[in-house]
Amino acid sequence: MNEILFLTSNKHKITEAQTILNKYNLKLVSFPGKGEEIQSDSLQEVARICAKRAYLRIKKPLFVEDSGLFIDALNGFPGAYSAFALDKIGCEGILRLLGQERLRGARFECAVAYADKNGTRIFTGAVLGSISTQIFEGEGFGYDPIFIPEGHKQTFSKNFEVKEKISHRSIALEKLAKFLTEKKE
Amino acid sequence: MNEILFLTSNKHKITEAQTILNKYNLKLVSFPGKGEEIQSDSLQEVARICAKRAYLRIKKPLFVEDSGLFIDALNGFPGAYSAFALDKIGCEGILRLLGQERLRGARFECAVAYADKNGTRIFTGAVLGSISTQIFEGEGFGYDPIFIPEGHKQTFSKNFEVKEKISHRSIALEKLAKFLTEKKE
Repeated sequence: MNEILFLTSNKHKITEAQTILNKYNLKLVSFPGKGEEIQSDSLQEVARICAKRAYLRIKKPLFVEDSGLFIDALNGFPGAYSAFALDKIGCEGILRLLGQERLRGARFECAVAYADKNGTRIFTGAVLGSISTQIFEGEGFGYDPIFIPEGHKQTFSKNFEVKEKISHRSIALEKLAKFLTEKKE
Repeated sequence: MNEILFLTSNKHKITEAQTILNKYNLKLVSFPGKGEEIQSDSLQEVARICAKRAYLRIKKPLFVEDSGLFIDALNGFPGAYSAFALDKIGCEGILRLLGQERLRGARFECAVAYADKNGTRIFTGAVLGSISTQIFEGEGFGYDPIFIPEGHKQTFSKNFEVKEKISHRSIALEKLAKFLTEKKE
């Protein structure tokens, strides 16, 4: 079983990735620290360049992941800078920015970039939903306490089984896992 | 008179820099487009790496500038991502995040990175102040309509002469101009 490095320091992301890759008999090794990320509105560009440069340095098959929450009424904010905004203003800041706004549509996006000697490949995932009017603490991390996926009534934080199945990150990681499995056969 | 390239697409910044460098008999040439910026909480790091990489590409003396508004009550948000936040949520979003907060202290910071064949140098500037409770349209750009410098009653947008003298960017650019002038003598 070949090892694949996952460049991240986020324990939640490691757990989520392990759950999925293990199903495909792929061995994930977390590589602490994150690669250098450029400033860009495009998650795909951030992930692609990050993975490419990390591979040139580490020279082992690896992937990086970049996710963002894009809120319609905030012109896509916090988007590619979701981690930064979460750290500074939190879910509470997002609710304050939205105020009494009725159109609360949003989407979570994820870009996984995999790099090996053959180059870099991108796998994406997205999930549509809306922003709740209050914070629901529970499982998960990040903006899970305020994101309600379409067709459901509870936030990701209150419905973690659903998150594991339909989240932006799960979708992108499933694509990566399938690609790696098919490649080996 | 040697030419110095300023990598930016921001017309306001070009005008501000020209006003200062011309006083020192330095000729500014704006270089459209911006260099690649990394994601970092540190303006100095963003500017330094951007200038260094741009110099390797362009091979002419150049500088880049990165500024940010750091608001105490928002844990330093929007900080190094001020341009992005302005584009997405605007001054209005900042006021909404602060709400009725009474402690409205903030600072503007600027890092100018100059690169030539001898390497990269950083010049910084900062100005303390506070965030107004409403938006005052006027001159300037960015967060000028909501930033009141310490010791003054009006925002930068309503007091542009003061801005030219004491702003974070003016201070950093004055340092750059002095460095370049002394170097030539």
